[in-house]
Order: sequence, then structure tokens, then C-alpha cells
Amino acid sequence: MSRVAYVNGQYVRHGDAAVHVEDRGYQFADGVYEVCEVWKGNIVDMPRHLDRLGRSLGELRIDWPMARNALEFVLTEVVRRNRVANGMVYVQVTRGVARRDHFFPSDDVAPSMVVTARSTSPKAAEVQAAKGISVVTYPENRWPRVDIKTVALLPNVLAKQNAKEKGGKEAWYIDVNGNVTEGGSTNAWIVTRDGVLVTRPAENGILRGITRAAVLDLVAREGISFEERAFSLDEALLAREAFVTAASTLVMPVVKIDDTIVGNGHPGSVATRLREAFHTATDLQAVVA
Amino acid sequence: MSRVAYVNGQYVRHGDAAVHVEDRGYQFADGVYEVCEVWKGNIVDMPRHLDRLGRSLGELRIDWPMARNALEFVLTEVVRRNRVANGMVYVQVTRGVARRDHFFPSDDVAPSMVVTARSTSPKAAEVQAAKGISVVTYPENRWPRVDIKTVALLPNVLAKQNAKEKGGKEAWYIDVNGNVTEGGSTNAWIVTRDGVLVTRPAENGILRGITRAAVLDLVAREGISFEERAFSLDEALLAREAFVTAASTLVMPVVKIDDTIVGNGHPGSVATRLREAFHTATDLQAVVA
Repeated sequence: MSRVAYVNGQYVRHGDAAVHVEDRGYQFADGVYEVCEVWKGNIVDMPRHLDRLGRSLGELRIDWPMARNALEFVLTEVVRRNRVANGMVYVQVTRGVARRDHFFPSDDVAPSMVVTARSTSPKAAEVQAAKGISVVTYPENRWPRVDIKTVALLPNVLAKQNAKEKGGKEAWYIDVNGNVTEGGSTNAWIVTRDGVLVTRPAENGILRGITRAAVLDLVAREGISFEERAFSLDEALLAREAFVTAASTLVMPVVKIDDTIVGNGHPGSVATRLREAFHTATDLQAVVA
Repeated sequence: MSRVAYVNGQYVRHGDAAVHVEDRGYQFADGVYEVCEVWKGNIVDMPRHLDRLGRSLGELRIDWPMARNALEFVLTEVVRRNRVANGMVYVQVTRGVARRDHFFPSDDVAPSMVVTARSTSPKAAEVQAAKGISVVTYPENRWPRVDIKTVALLPNVLAKQNAKEKGGKEAWYIDVNGNVTEGGSTNAWIVTRDGVLVTRPAENGILRGITRAAVLDLVAREGISFEERAFSLDEALLAREAFVTAASTLVMPVVKIDDTIVGNGHPGSVATRLREAFHTATDLQAVVA
């Protein structure tokens, strides 16, 4: 079966999915995106993802490319046409196609919208989660508006590539105060030596992760001791456990930070428990949907 | 005559010029670009632009998309096919097309290359230069690697749009020390009350402008009193004159900074002299070419 993408009003073969070279996404990174997990054919936390998409669009003053319920339909349709049971669906919206000029184009230029989907292996993800990942620290060097989920991801690309070349799977940004801000494409969490789960507030300096929010719900439900505050790299290196969250990784244990083994070097009990709780919650969403 | 673009090995109708939705330029801003002035059919300062393109590619570890002399040929050919006498030629190189993943793709993924060209009106540019432009200040909020000419231009888009909405044609970034770093797509210059031309060193915090370098040559040749150093917004507000440089604007006088009139509110003599000298120099290039 060949893959299908949605591009500006049409479902096309993935290989033919193309945008104009003067799409402002290509020349100016003038666009935003969302990545959602697909679990048992259901798009996990779709309302929260679309809320955030709406916020990102609003911050950049890009119009919705279509009504929200139509957009929901397209996401669902791309998942269906690609027969994705478990995987990801990706949506990107840009300010549209116009003659190259930094200034916003005139109001009659419509936003561009692209949707793709692909299957991933739940088994491979579980194998990875059972082992945990290493993260490699990187000086925070992004612009302050990382709260907007834009496609201006080059800094993240370079930080993550640096991590990969040092044997890691994720970068952890460290700000000028020595605090962990977030990962290159994930939010960062630790469980302190005293057993308190900690993650940074989403007020500024990080993206308000959808999986982060979903995990916060589970933390409350499970009665896990929790503080929402900044934490330093030093504190993380002494932590009992650490993990990252994102729609693409869910709850992924961190077993090494740079050259320091976290805890006993194996996925921690809080991360493992939250990962299981997340699966249970998404199972329920899939049943209801 | 319909416009022609070059896209990954082919000359195509501009309207059909498209790249895959998984081009890393579209999803990650993982690419670089150059804009060159075309004057009397000649690409101005092409060697310097290609030197800088090579540096940008090197900093991001993207391969040249083709040999440098082949790339020169393509630029020239796109200018020729579009019959551009006076205008711009644009080249963008990205890390290529690969399944979406922050990490660099495998070595067998070839870079993408797009070239477009268009005519502009020299008369309209001279009318603008005779009036001068207003600039609107903006807090510096870009990542530190602005020395690389990447397509991650969203911060510049927002700064320039802010300027436009306040009646300006360019943004001037002000750093935390109150110094002017550069414009949203230009380098910034002033002539102090004492008649000294000043522009910020290109060591860090700004892009090493090609037009800036060409103007520096002219400054030396014309024996203009000059200092290469940072200057503050306060100093700029008191300056005798101010201007910006870029391949797209050449030497463009600045007659207003926010609400403050610069000098007597008309283009200054140094800016005017340098603009004329620049035209003379590019005339010579065109004759030689």
C-alpha cells in the first residue's frame, strides 16, 4: 500500500506530496506544527493538540487553514487512508505561498496545510522504554518563544544531532542558571532523591507539552508526590530517576545524563508506572472513540 | 514570458516549482540561502556570496549540492532564462528530503537546491533611496548563530512585520547592552555627530553582509573616516546620518529611528555618496563580466 498525504485540499501519493518553493514554511520557517500519537487507530489527545495548534497560529497571526472540525476530519482521514493502527500523525500549517518578502503577505494569501501519517512499532518502543535512553546536555540557545510550536527547528536539530553523536537519543537544554529547560523535542522530568517528581512549569522557556499535560493528570490521579518547579542539572545528576515525555516517545526513562548514570542505571519505577498508566488511558480513549 | 525556477536538477515553470513536504527545509528550517543583486544582467559579488554560502553549509555540515562552478552556472542560467537585467537571484540549499526525524539523515540523502530570480525596478529603488526609510527598534531575540545565513527566519519575519505596522521598512535589533546589532535583513550603519562612519564588527552577533563588505572596500577607497565598533541606540538617535546595507536594498538611507528624526530628516551625504560609488562599482563588474 502506498502512503497518502494531504496537501492543501488534496489527498496525494506521499511521494508526490509537494509544496511550492515560495511557501513561507520553506523560505522563512513561517509555520507551526503538531505531532500526535496514534494508538489503536485513535488520535491520542486530539482536542489538546488542536487547542495548542490554535494557540500557535494565534501567536503568529496565521489563520486556521479550515474549520477545526474539518481539520479533525482530515487528520482522521489521513490516519485511516494510511491504515495507521499505531504511529504518528503530523500536521503543519504555514502562512502560505507568496513572493519572497519577510513581511506578512496580503490577507488573500491562504495558509498552507500538510498532513502526513506513518506507522511505528509499539514493540520497538517498549523495548526502548525497557532499556531507557541517554541524554546529552546542550547550552540553551533558542529564541525565547519556544512556547510556540514553530517549524524553526534548526537549533533543536543541531542539539539533538550533537546528542546522537555522543551516544544519546535526546538533548537536554541547560539555561544560564544551570537549570534544565527541556529536551530537544521532549519535556524533562526527574524524581528527586527524596522521591518527589519534578518538572519545570510551562509558563515560559519551554513548550507546553500535550503528553506532559496528560502525564500531569495521571500524576494527580495516582497520588504521586509532585512539585512543578525548575530543577538544575546538578539535581538531575543526583536524581533517583529521570524521564522525558512527548507524543513521539510517551514516557521514556532516562538512564544516563552525559557521563553520569541516573539512579541504578535502569528505568525507574515512577517512569514505568506512568508509562503503563498512559497506555491504559490511551486504551480507554481508543475504546471511547 | 513565464518565470522559470531551478529545482533539484530541473528548470521548471515557476508556478510548478515545488519541493517535497518532507524536505528538511520545510519541516526543520534545516537549510541556508543567499540573495544576490543582479545589475545589468550580472550577478553582483557572486564569488563573495558563494564563499559565504560555503561557510553556511560548512557550519551546518550540509554538502554542496553540486560543484561550485556548476552552481555559478545555474545561478547565471536562471537569471538568463528569466531575462533579469536588474533584480535578484535567490538560492536555497537544504539538507534534503528524508522521513521526518530531527537527526541528520543518512549520508546518501542529497541536499536540495532551489534557485529563483526576479526583476525589480531600479527606478523605484532610487525613488526610495532619495526619500530614505524609517526603522523600528526591536529587542534582539534570535539565537546566537545569526552568523549563519539559515532559513530559520521566523524571528526576523516578526521583527520586520512589527516595523511595518509601525510605519517602518526595517527592524533594528537592540541587544541587552542597548547596542544596535543589525537589521531584520540588513546591516546597520551610522555617521556620528563627529562625522565618523561606524558599523558593528562582523565577528559575532550579526551576519557578515556581502554588501557590507563591498561597502567597506568603498569606504577605504574613498578615504571616509571609519570605525568598526558596536554603537548604541542612544548614539544612533543622535547620529548625523544612518543607513542600512543588503543585496536587496544596497545602501539605503535611514531618516527615522522609532519616533526620532535622524539628522535633518533627509538622506545623508555619506550614504548617498556610498550608494553612488556602489552603483559605479557594480557597473564595472557588469562590464567586466
